[in-house]
Amino acid sequence: MILTVTPNAALDVTYHVPTLRPGAAHRVTDVAVRAGGKGVNVARVLHALGHETLVTGLAGGREIQDDLAAAGIAERLVSVTTPARRTVTVVSGDGAATAFNEQGPPVAARDWERLAAVFPTLADRAEVVVLSGSLPPGLPADAYARLIGATTTPVVLDASGPALLGGVPAGPRLVKPNAEELAEATGTGDPLAGAARLRAHGAGAVVASLGPDGLVAVTGEGVWRARSRPRTGNPTGAGDACVAALAAGLAAGADWPVVLADAVALSAAAVACPLAGDVDLDVYRRLAPLIEVEGPHADTDR
Amino acid sequence: MILTVTPNAALDVTYHVPTLRPGAAHRVTDVAVRAGGKGVNVARVLHALGHETLVTGLAGGREIQDDLAAAGIAERLVSVTTPARRTVTVVSGDGAATAFNEQGPPVAARDWERLAAVFPTLADRAEVVVLSGSLPPGLPADAYARLIGATTTPVVLDASGPALLGGVPAGPRLVKPNAEELAEATGTGDPLAGAARLRAHGAGAVVASLGPDGLVAVTGEGVWRARSRPRTGNPTGAGDACVAALAAGLAAGADWPVVLADAVALSAAAVACPLAGDVDLDVYRRLAPLIEVEGPHADTDR
Repeated sequence: MILTVTPNAALDVTYHVPTLRPGAAHRVTDVAVRAGGKGVNVARVLHALGHETLVTGLAGGREIQDDLAAAGIAERLVSVTTPARRTVTVVSGDGAATAFNEQGPPVAARDWERLAAVFPTLADRAEVVVLSGSLPPGLPADAYARLIGATTTPVVLDASGPALLGGVPAGPRLVKPNAEELAEATGTGDPLAGAARLRAHGAGAVVASLGPDGLVAVTGEGVWRARSRPRTGNPTGAGDACVAALAAGLAAGADWPVVLADAVALSAAAVACPLAGDVDLDVYRRLAPLIEVEGPHADTDR
Repeated sequence: MILTVTPNAALDVTYHVPTLRPGAAHRVTDVAVRAGGKGVNVARVLHALGHETLVTGLAGGREIQDDLAAAGIAERLVSVTTPARRTVTVVSGDGAATAFNEQGPPVAARDWERLAAVFPTLADRAEVVVLSGSLPPGLPADAYARLIGATTTPVVLDASGPALLGGVPAGPRLVKPNAEELAEATGTGDPLAGAARLRAHGAGAVVASLGPDGLVAVTGEGVWRARSRPRTGNPTGAGDACVAALAAGLAAGADWPVVLADAVALSAAAVACPLAGDVDLDVYRRLAPLIEVEGPHADTDR
C-alpha cells in the first residue's frame, strides 16, 4: 500500500466558460467538483494504475471524504471543522485554464496533532509514503520533518519553499521539485548543483522535473536523465503523476531507468488530461517503452 | 415587515488578487464568503436602513442560513439537500470584478412545493413582498405567478426573461427591469413602449433602470423620470438597492417622486460599495435630497 499525505486537501472546482472576459459576469452552467490537493491527485493516479493506496491529511467538511468514497479511494483523512479549502479553475473554450487557489483557513494545533498521532500507524503499514503539497496556515515549517522522522518507511517528498527545506533534513528517500522550486529552494539555477545541495542537507535522491527537458535524477548511484518529445496539453497534474510513478517504482524496488521512464510517460499521460489526478492510460502504455533514459553518469559529468 | 423571496439563493464568494491573468494560477489569500442572491441582497440593504425584513426562498446546505443569522437578518428559507449554489467574484487590484455565477443544481418538485406552501402565510404578514432573481433549474416559468396569485400583499417583481414574462400576468404591483432586460422581454428598445407592454400584460407599474440615465417609472398616474449625476464604482448590487428603496416606499405609501428619488440615491449608494447588498449610507443620505424627479407626464409625452 502507498500512503499519500495531503496536509492541505481541497475541493477542486472546475468551471467551463466559452470565453474568459476579465471584468465581465459569466454564467456557469457546467460545474465539476471533486477532491483534490497534490497527495489526493497522486492517490488518484495510483488508484487508476491498480495500486493499493490510502489517503490521509487534513480536510475541512465532509465533501472531500465523500468524493473519495465515491471514487473508491480509501482515506483516513483527519476532519477539521472549517469548510474545505477550494480551488477554482476556469477552463475556457480554447482550453486555457485559469486557476484560483485558496490558501485555506488556519489549522488548529490540536488538528495537526491528531494527524501527527495517526500518521505513524498508517505509515508503518505502507511500502512507501508520499508527502505532497503546501502546508496550510498554522502548521510549522518542519511539519514534514516530523512526519518523516516518525516512520522507517521510505518517504517521497513533493513540496516547495519552506515546506521542502523544512522536510529535507529529516532524510526523505526522494524529493521531487520542479526546476523553479529547486532554484528557489537552493539559490542556484543549475539543477545538478541544486540537487547536490538538497542531498547534502539530507535528501536521499533528487528527481527534478525540467518541463520539456524531462527529468534529471541525482542519486547515490549517479545521475540519470530521462525525456520524451514535448507534448501539448494541460501541465497541471503532471508533477503529481510523476510522483505517483516514483512512489510506485520505489515500492516495487525497480531500477532507476525503469522508474524514470515510467515517471516521464505518466507525466505525459497527465498532460493529455485536463484535470489534475487524471491520466490517459493509453498514452502512458504507449509511451513508457519509448522513453530514453541516459545514465548513470557521475555527478561531475556535467 | 418586507418579505424577500430568493428562489435561487447563493453563497457569494469574493477573491482578491493583485492582477487577473487569464491562463495563469493565482494564489488567493483573501477569501470572503457570504449569503447572496438578489432577494438576500435586497433584505441586506433594507436591514441596513433599519427596516424589518424576512428572507425566504430555496437554499442548499446550511451556510446561507448561518451567515444570515450572523448578520442578524431573519430568514425562513426552505433548505434543500444539494450544496449551496456559489458565485465567485474575482476582484483585481484595479477594482475590476470578474464574476462566475453558478446556475445551481435542479430543484426537486417537492422542495418547490414546500416553498409554495410556506409562502402565503409569510406574505400575508408582510406589507410588501419582493420576488427577486433567476429561477433555479426545475422550477416552472410561472413560478413567480403562482406566488403572486397566492397573496393579496403588493408584490415587487425583479426578474428577467421567462421568469419576468411568466410572472407579469399574475399582476405584480411593480416590476423593475433594467433597460436590457426590458428590451429583451418586450422586443422593443424604447423603455416607455416596453413598459407599456408589461403594464398591458398585468404589471401595475414599471420602474426601468436605465444606468446613467436614471430611472423611468411608468405608472397609472403618469410617467416620472429620476436621475443623478453618473458615479464611478461597482454597479453590481445597484439594482438590488433600487428594489429595496421601491419596496420600502411602497410599504410606506410614499408618493412616486419621493420613492424614485430614494431609489436613485440608494442605487448610487450601492455603486459606492464593492459587494452587492452593501450601501454607503452617507452617500445615500447626502444624495437623496438632491435627486431631480420630473413628472408626472402622460405616457404620450415622449
